[in-house]
Amino acid sequence: MKKIKIVETASYVPQKIVTNDELSQIMETSDEWISTRTGIKQRHISLGENTSDLCLHVAQELLEKSGWAPESLDLLLVATMSPDSYTPATAALVQGKLQAKNALAFDISAACSGFIYGLKVAEKFLQQGSTKRVMLIGGEVLSKVIDWSDRTSAVLFGDGAAGALLESKTSGDSDFLGASLHTFGEFGDKLEAGKTEAISTFPNLKEHYIRAFSMSGRDVYTFATHRVPESIEEAVSKAALTLDDIDYFVLHQANSRIVTQIAKKLAQPLTKFPLNIAEYGNTSAASVPLLLDELVTQGKIKRGVKIALSGFGGGLTVGTQVIKY
Amino acid sequence: MKKIKIVETASYVPQKIVTNDELSQIMETSDEWISTRTGIKQRHISLGENTSDLCLHVAQELLEKSGWAPESLDLLLVATMSPDSYTPATAALVQGKLQAKNALAFDISAACSGFIYGLKVAEKFLQQGSTKRVMLIGGEVLSKVIDWSDRTSAVLFGDGAAGALLESKTSGDSDFLGASLHTFGEFGDKLEAGKTEAISTFPNLKEHYIRAFSMSGRDVYTFATHRVPESIEEAVSKAALTLDDIDYFVLHQANSRIVTQIAKKLAQPLTKFPLNIAEYGNTSAASVPLLLDELVTQGKIKRGVKIALSGFGGGLTVGTQVIKY
Repeated sequence: MKKIKIVETASYVPQKIVTNDELSQIMETSDEWISTRTGIKQRHISLGENTSDLCLHVAQELLEKSGWAPESLDLLLVATMSPDSYTPATAALVQGKLQAKNALAFDISAACSGFIYGLKVAEKFLQQGSTKRVMLIGGEVLSKVIDWSDRTSAVLFGDGAAGALLESKTSGDSDFLGASLHTFGEFGDKLEAGKTEAISTFPNLKEHYIRAFSMSGRDVYTFATHRVPESIEEAVSKAALTLDDIDYFVLHQANSRIVTQIAKKLAQPLTKFPLNIAEYGNTSAASVPLLLDELVTQGKIKRGVKIALSGFGGGLTVGTQVIKY
Repeated sequence: MKKIKIVETASYVPQKIVTNDELSQIMETSDEWISTRTGIKQRHISLGENTSDLCLHVAQELLEKSGWAPESLDLLLVATMSPDSYTPATAALVQGKLQAKNALAFDISAACSGFIYGLKVAEKFLQQGSTKRVMLIGGEVLSKVIDWSDRTSAVLFGDGAAGALLESKTSGDSDFLGASLHTFGEFGDKLEAGKTEAISTFPNLKEHYIRAFSMSGRDVYTFATHRVPESIEEAVSKAALTLDDIDYFVLHQANSRIVTQIAKKLAQPLTKFPLNIAEYGNTSAASVPLLLDELVTQGKIKRGVKIALSGFGGGLTVGTQVIKY
């Protein structure tokens, strides 16, 4: 079984920033209300760029940083809950524009856990040996799904994309140390977005609408603050490590209160739980690699550092991957 | 590396049938026009049942046939281009309703090749050994995406779901003999469905609607009649077989003319290319397992029979898996 190496990370967010103050001009909310409850101060919003456009920026930067030729990619995965289309897959669009002609490309739908689920799929392909190079991107343009008149959900989300290059190693230990992924489909209705109903009469000549976000915030909070610590503990244990061995817990940025609560449950210092939600809001599948890339760029995550990447959200889903960077 | 076995197949289509004659009453078309150009006589249309509902019927039948307990599933994949929602994944909804609490669940988006791409993902998980039992379902409610006033696309598609149970084998040869999967993202715009545009101004308070199908029929025909024979030949060659060794070519049912042309290119008798498009139309990710299950149920595909399963479509994507059933 081949070992796995994380080669590079990259990220891209659209230029347009919408602050809490700007939101308060179009809905009944305030900077104070949003930031004390969520930790969010602003979010990046895509004007005109679709999900594949954001992902393409990330893909190009990943190739530039690594020096890899596009045709050397064997697999290109996009984790997203806001694809350009039902078909083609967003990954196929990126593959085409990148001219990564040897890469098998498809999307994975696992919402805010999508990047972690994608790491697992990438791992399975890389372990075989026939797949040597994988590009995995989490990308979202949630602004096209959001109901901008609904203050309960519109304040929470932002757009962005980020990803990583993964490679099979011919020698040494794997960078993937242990993982824990679980799906709790019985709570599927606690966080819904982009729903389309089956038609009820034939023929139905109406335009087809997708429903915006609906979320039971309290249920998702309870889920996250229980299941994420469990998932982290399981993954760390599978890696034959203790929580103290982990340098950084790179968690999905849904709400700073959730992160604080998880740190408390794990009895780990808050300094090991970096946050960037203030700048980006909740970017779903993009949030974990966005934070990872930021920490790598800042030099906080260096080679050899042990990190736990953890995603959670719609499905409901949860997933943790422990990595030696 | 573990070997893989196909354990059971099952399928489900909604009750409501819409014939070509019925379509000709709501749009400028005719039974003669549709059936001579596509081979389609009717299609099943879901009234009220969403994609997860169709998939759940398949999932329950698979468990019934196999006697497997729901909690014995390790992985539950749904290949779809018409999910219930962007989140939760349709696979998560099925997992929840099935009470398959130990199954990791996510969706794969690769359109009409989704079932074949799903087989590849399932294979990678099963080969490791830690995943022992996989449920893979292709399910679509395309009727909720179709523009029922557009005669060029509305006549082509239908709803349905079908799937298979896969298991790692402890002894003997693998049922998976060889495969060939490719993505041609540069042709992504030749077949689009369910597109959502990024907003162009902020705030955007409009309802979000998804665009129906748009297809360059000629380009897709040319793609399919060239790339599918290549894919089949590559997969058969990887299986160390010849085309004559294959008992049935179970092809995605997009158009009977495409199937005829592929048979001709491969110089194989048309009797080895079963068709059920007349009854179901193009059911995208469901079509290959729907035909497979029909042939198994009819006793035409028995244990030991060699088959090539081949999907092609949006992405553009193509994939063939050669199997000893």
